[in-house]
Amino acid sequence: MGIRSVAVIGLGLIGGSLARDLAARGVRVLGYDRDPLHLQSALAAGILRKGLDDSLEGLAEAEIVVLAVPVSAAPDVLRRAEPWLDRARLVTDVGSTKQSTVAAAERLGIGNRFVGSHPLAGDHRSGWAASRTGLFSGARIFLCPAPSAHEEAVVLARDFWRSVGAIPEPLDADTHDRRLAWTSHLPQAVSTTLALVLADAGIERSQLGAAGREMTRVAGSSPEMWTAIALDNAAVLADAVAAVESRLRAFRRALGSSDAAGVHECFAGGQQWAARDRAD
Amino acid sequence: MGIRSVAVIGLGLIGGSLARDLAARGVRVLGYDRDPLHLQSALAAGILRKGLDDSLEGLAEAEIVVLAVPVSAAPDVLRRAEPWLDRARLVTDVGSTKQSTVAAAERLGIGNRFVGSHPLAGDHRSGWAASRTGLFSGARIFLCPAPSAHEEAVVLARDFWRSVGAIPEPLDADTHDRRLAWTSHLPQAVSTTLALVLADAGIERSQLGAAGREMTRVAGSSPEMWTAIALDNAAVLADAVAAVESRLRAFRRALGSSDAAGVHECFAGGQQWAARDRAD
Repeated sequence: MGIRSVAVIGLGLIGGSLARDLAARGVRVLGYDRDPLHLQSALAAGILRKGLDDSLEGLAEAEIVVLAVPVSAAPDVLRRAEPWLDRARLVTDVGSTKQSTVAAAERLGIGNRFVGSHPLAGDHRSGWAASRTGLFSGARIFLCPAPSAHEEAVVLARDFWRSVGAIPEPLDADTHDRRLAWTSHLPQAVSTTLALVLADAGIERSQLGAAGREMTRVAGSSPEMWTAIALDNAAVLADAVAAVESRLRAFRRALGSSDAAGVHECFAGGQQWAARDRAD
Repeated sequence: MGIRSVAVIGLGLIGGSLARDLAARGVRVLGYDRDPLHLQSALAAGILRKGLDDSLEGLAEAEIVVLAVPVSAAPDVLRRAEPWLDRARLVTDVGSTKQSTVAAAERLGIGNRFVGSHPLAGDHRSGWAASRTGLFSGARIFLCPAPSAHEEAVVLARDFWRSVGAIPEPLDADTHDRRLAWTSHLPQAVSTTLALVLADAGIERSQLGAAGREMTRVAGSSPEMWTAIALDNAAVLADAVAAVESRLRAFRRALGSSDAAGVHECFAGGQQWAARDRAD
């Protein structure tokens, strides 16, 4: 890849873990976080070679710039970074929605070097304290180039993520956001909803069995991050949520009328779908 | 405990695992399964000392009789077993609902020796092939005595489950069924529903991230078992399902009106509830 200098903006779980992996591979990592404590921790750990100040001026030294901030903050951070991106061969992000950030990059005139990234990595923990090496090892990562992205930037993005062990999969931003509404944002919304309902009912999480515990684990994820994702993908996510409401209503009605065949059809349908997947 | 002979009716995940644990402790285990292949496997593995035929006559030798059949089958199996229970000091079951089985035992005149059990053990796999030793080690188990149960039967049930490593918690059957509707049956219904919705949308389970995968794992559980549980606890479960529908609708409306505060309130509420539990 031949990259010597990478800047990471936002040193949370994803950004912090990426900085750790890059530093371990001898890359010179520059970093920024709006929380000075995170920045100091990353410097003290020897992960960052240089901390950037609020001007972001130091980005001018980086060949690759990675935004690892909530998707709602990405357009503004891109705007503040733009004056210092002349030397950057690749600008990317790690958000769970891609259309709005790709569009912001195009508007700022840096679409030729912008390839959005979405690593399927991380868990319900967040912040620098949760960051660790090896987070991307074996993880799928969607790469969504801006419409005007140069081939060189696309190849560099692929090689960059492979260098930390991720498995890149190209996808246009629109398809990405539609698919992730169902495969990721909906499961999160359902976990959160189940948590709210159990809270309303006065149930503590420690009272749950194994199934309830695993179904409410990601409800513990960062509300700020997920509010931004949900709002950014609101229309498709709302359709997916409506589909769950409709299926729940049908199940409830089958229960209410003691319709054994209808109730069985629900459990059998879910079981058949799950059984097509042999991974666990 | 001083028990030498236990009969297990139904050699699936729970019954089979219990038989394995008892055999490993030197207890003489008698067994029955309506599937002759399961019965033969358990005999061939040296777990059962004796297989029972459809008459259930052999139950007359057992000091403890355990029903490990779907809750919908339990009343009928109890009725068939009743003529052979003169020697039994304890009759119990392992179903996820308790009121209907406890009531059936009372109707049959064996309430004095009936203590319903519900071990919080097992997973989405089922059948003899999934059974294993140690399944109950450290698992909570609810014990729901019949109203007319003798103290001796209650003490014996506690000691019996402790002997295989479970942690007994007494609870009356009504309270049990109400609580489990929320802590267990609702999470299962939500997992099944999410699986159905993803199937409708043409999504394969292998496309999901970690959160989606763990939220749809128990959708792979036995449809027969869960249909019986859901119908047996239909009224309370329907209320719980309606609560999820209502919370989902509110979330969807907040999305639809770009109500950032409303969306954040959902994610933050779920996160705060999850954060009160420190176990993972």
